[in-house]
Amino acid sequence: MNELSPKPPRLSTVDMTELVLPNDANPIGNMLGGRVLHFIDMAAAISAIRHAGNPCVTASFDSVDFHHPIHIGEACILKSKVTWAGHTSIEVFVEVYAENIRTGQRRHTTTAFTTFVAIDPATGKPAPVPPVAPETDDERRLFEGALQRRAERMARRGEH
Amino acid sequence: MNELSPKPPRLSTVDMTELVLPNDANPIGNMLGGRVLHFIDMAAAISAIRHAGNPCVTASFDSVDFHHPIHIGEACILKSKVTWAGHTSIEVFVEVYAENIRTGQRRHTTTAFTTFVAIDPATGKPAPVPPVAPETDDERRLFEGALQRRAERMARRGEH
Amino acid sequence: MNELSPKPPRLSTVDMTELVLPNDANPIGNMLGGRVLHFIDMAAAISAIRHAGNPCVTASFDSVDFHHPIHIGEACILKSKVTWAGHTSIEVFVEVYAENIRTGQRRHTTTAFTTFVAIDPATGKPAPVPPVAPETDDERRLFEGALQRRAERMARRGEH
Amino acid sequence: MNELSPKPPRLSTVDMTELVLPNDANPIGNMLGGRVLHFIDMAAAISAIRHAGNPCVTASFDSVDFHHPIHIGEACILKSKVTWAGHTSIEVFVEVYAENIRTGQRRHTTTAFTTFVAIDPATGKPAPVPPVAPETDDERRLFEGALQRRAERMARRGEH
Amino acid sequence: MNELSPKPPRLSTVDMTELVLPNDANPIGNMLGGRVLHFIDMAAAISAIRHAGNPCVTASFDSVDFHHPIHIGEACILKSKVTWAGHTSIEVFVEVYAENIRTGQRRHTTTAFTTFVAIDPATGKPAPVPPVAPETDDERRLFEGALQRRAERMARRGEH
Amino acid sequence: MNELSPKPPRLSTVDMTELVLPNDANPIGNMLGGRVLHFIDMAAAISAIRHAGNPCVTASFDSVDFHHPIHIGEACILKSKVTWAGHTSIEVFVEVYAENIRTGQRRHTTTAFTTFVAIDPATGKPAPVPPVAPETDDERRLFEGALQRRAERMARRGEH
Repeated sequence: MNELSPKPPRLSTVDMTELVLPNDANPIGNMLGGRVLHFIDMAAAISAIRHAGNPCVTASFDSVDFHHPIHIGEACILKSKVTWAGHTSIEVFVEVYAENIRTGQRRHTTTAFTTFVAIDPATGKPAPVPPVAPETDDERRLFEGALQRRAERMARRGEH
Repeated sequence: MNELSPKPPRLSTVDMTELVLPNDANPIGNMLGGRVLHFIDMAAAISAIRHAGNPCVTASFDSVDFHHPIHIGEACILKSKVTWAGHTSIEVFVEVYAENIRTGQRRHTTTAFTTFVAIDPATGKPAPVPPVAPETDDERRLFEGALQRRAERMARRGEH
Repeated sequence: MNELSPKPPRLSTVDMTELVLPNDANPIGNMLGGRVLHFIDMAAAISAIRHAGNPCVTASFDSVDFHHPIHIGEACILKSKVTWAGHTSIEVFVEVYAENIRTGQRRHTTTAFTTFVAIDPATGKPAPVPPVAPETDDERRLFEGALQRRAERMARRGEH
Repeated sequence: MNELSPKPPRLSTVDMTELVLPNDANPIGNMLGGRVLHFIDMAAAISAIRHAGNPCVTASFDSVDFHHPIHIGEACILKSKVTWAGHTSIEVFVEVYAENIRTGQRRHTTTAFTTFVAIDPATGKPAPVPPVAPETDDERRLFEGALQRRAERMARRGEH
Repeated sequence: MNELSPKPPRLSTVDMTELVLPNDANPIGNMLGGRVLHFIDMAAAISAIRHAGNPCVTASFDSVDFHHPIHIGEACILKSKVTWAGHTSIEVFVEVYAENIRTGQRRHTTTAFTTFVAIDPATGKPAPVPPVAPETDDERRLFEGALQRRAERMARRGEH
Repeated sequence: MNELSPKPPRLSTVDMTELVLPNDANPIGNMLGGRVLHFIDMAAAISAIRHAGNPCVTASFDSVDFHHPIHIGEACILKSKVTWAGHTSIEVFVEVYAENIRTGQRRHTTTAFTTFVAIDPATGKPAPVPPVAPETDDERRLFEGALQRRAERMARRGEH
């Protein structure tokens, strides 16, 4: 679809660890959902820019479920990587874990598929991005599911 | 479904206006998607707590599309209201606009459906919430669409 | 006084809602007065820029009384609008309410009159602003009181 | 008026220096008035708590004029001290300077008189505070002007 | 030295990635050294708490050199792990890299040795910590150097 | 060493006072070491820029010990001044105190020697700085110790 060399997800993998502070939480001590989404967006943006070699802007978040609360004093741990790329758009997959740092007990709290558009900084217009070259079984599964997710995004935009 | 008196969306409507500052934006001056989602979560949480009369925690965000960039120095304007409630869960609808404050030009940039669970602060368990009593045509349309959106959330959770 | 078309306060009305987080409060859980003043300034600045169609800088705050404490977990709700304009200066009126979100109980905690000067971004000099065209009785009362407030500001500046 | 030993303003003097960062400023690079007021409140609160020996909450700000803009990269320098005390209330005077750090050029940008109420942390009620014992001519002048400023505050509250 | 089971550094390894935002930098666009130190402390604290199984407080930073500037829009990447433990104290080693996200070019900018003391949350007193069981050559080298670094810390404290 | 007029440390002395807020502390209520280091860097940077008359970037922190914890609601008080200058580098000494504001009880918690390099904003290259002219016995002692501290910094950089 474009002539840039394919890149493996390995090159765009981001590991992020954030200590949950009082201002990240609501009055009953649970981390605010919006703070989790902010961290997801930061991790995913870094993955997207690494893959694109250009600035990227957030285009969409697929639906996100918060399976477990995260508490003040716990660590919020994120892992993100690029799963698929179109002509100028990039899909990034992010997994979020909460860790009770003292016990090491870790819960898988959220997964998110986000999309970004690469921007040519000289023109401000969308810029072509390299294709994705999955290397592991897991990466291939995510890559193969991408067209279905993309079709669903197109469909939901058509509805609105 | 419960014996609490129904409440109209009017009582949970939240208007929020935020000036976009440099730290809210990426290096090319576009507001970070995660900051928009954080503001959406704050507005929606206040709507949900008003409706529930109890603390609420974010349970999910349906998919969100960012239709237009928002720039440093613009206003990010949000309007949220409760659309539907189950036994202990609440759906909140949020619309986001970007405004060039000097010209008054305003773009509709994002809509979001989020869900919250009410928490009994004494037990930390989910607490019953009042039903929603829509008053306008628009509120009735949102109310009627809620069961379909809820079914889709159930389905997607089943998949994972 | 200038040839710009008059604008009604309606066009500069700003609604702001902020959840009070731990870092907004002192160790006994009361929202810091300076945080309230910061939110007042943000709401008023947006009203002023809307009216002026140009960037605006804060010129003064009239005296402000804090009638009731606001607590962590409450909402701080602000409503601001332009009340009067001179050649390059604008008066903005802001009302602040605290809301116990769970009970809906709301207290009027503060009112503030602030003034701003519009700036021509090309020259950095003060820029002419449109006159104010009050539409409601309340707006007319605020408009009519503005000259007296302005005289008091002039007098107090003369003293210093 | 109470039997606590008088304290000189010297014991409550606070020196504060803040580097103005991008998020403290509006899009044309001027420090937001609300950020200046926030710093004034922080310095004054520390002065008040030192004098009272108890937590204090902001009760009022007398009118404040911003004489000169402060820019990103400059230092915002504050000096605050207690000037007068009633039975449970304290008046604090704050002066604000902007400094171009590289040239050392300093402008006097704002002065503020604020009042605080001391709180007994056990009961949450107002707590008696020591009288003020001015030591310098400047402190005596501020002390003597306090009753007039207090009368004006009483009068303006009566009006509202 | 204590009877807790030894733990390998692998279990306390923390990966952190932070996008450098405008408020993290000085007016010439370089990341503030204090922000880098803050991130080092956060990563190291999480490593220390993981190793100790208890809250930990920062006791010291050995000298830190900033070899290269980090710029707004770059990623600040940290890797920390526990290297050695005494009776109640823990040494943590942190490496900091700056990455130009678009080009993938990465510079090693800083290394830091920090120490923490574990705290028993019930008593507020120092709590015993497990010994460290290095597994790799690199970990053994760091472990063996720890006694010399500890002797230097003791000596410098004696001087003051 | 250069022809700029010597400047006394008096001209670069910075007094900083910060109220410790919830987000500055860990879950057991102790101020995070990294926040203290951030404040040290801010105070020292202002001292360095004042002395240099140019922007300055942090080059190093000598080892730092945290002798006492600082708690939420206390004041963190810093005093910094330039102690010595080379051709383009500046040494700044910072002392940190914690104050229980209500009792006035103050503990000396940390001292730090930091170095900065002055930058010519036109070229981005290191810029010459004035020599330091100590005026008090204390300043002379710090000045005389600087060459020894500098030799140790050189030695430790050689090791790495």
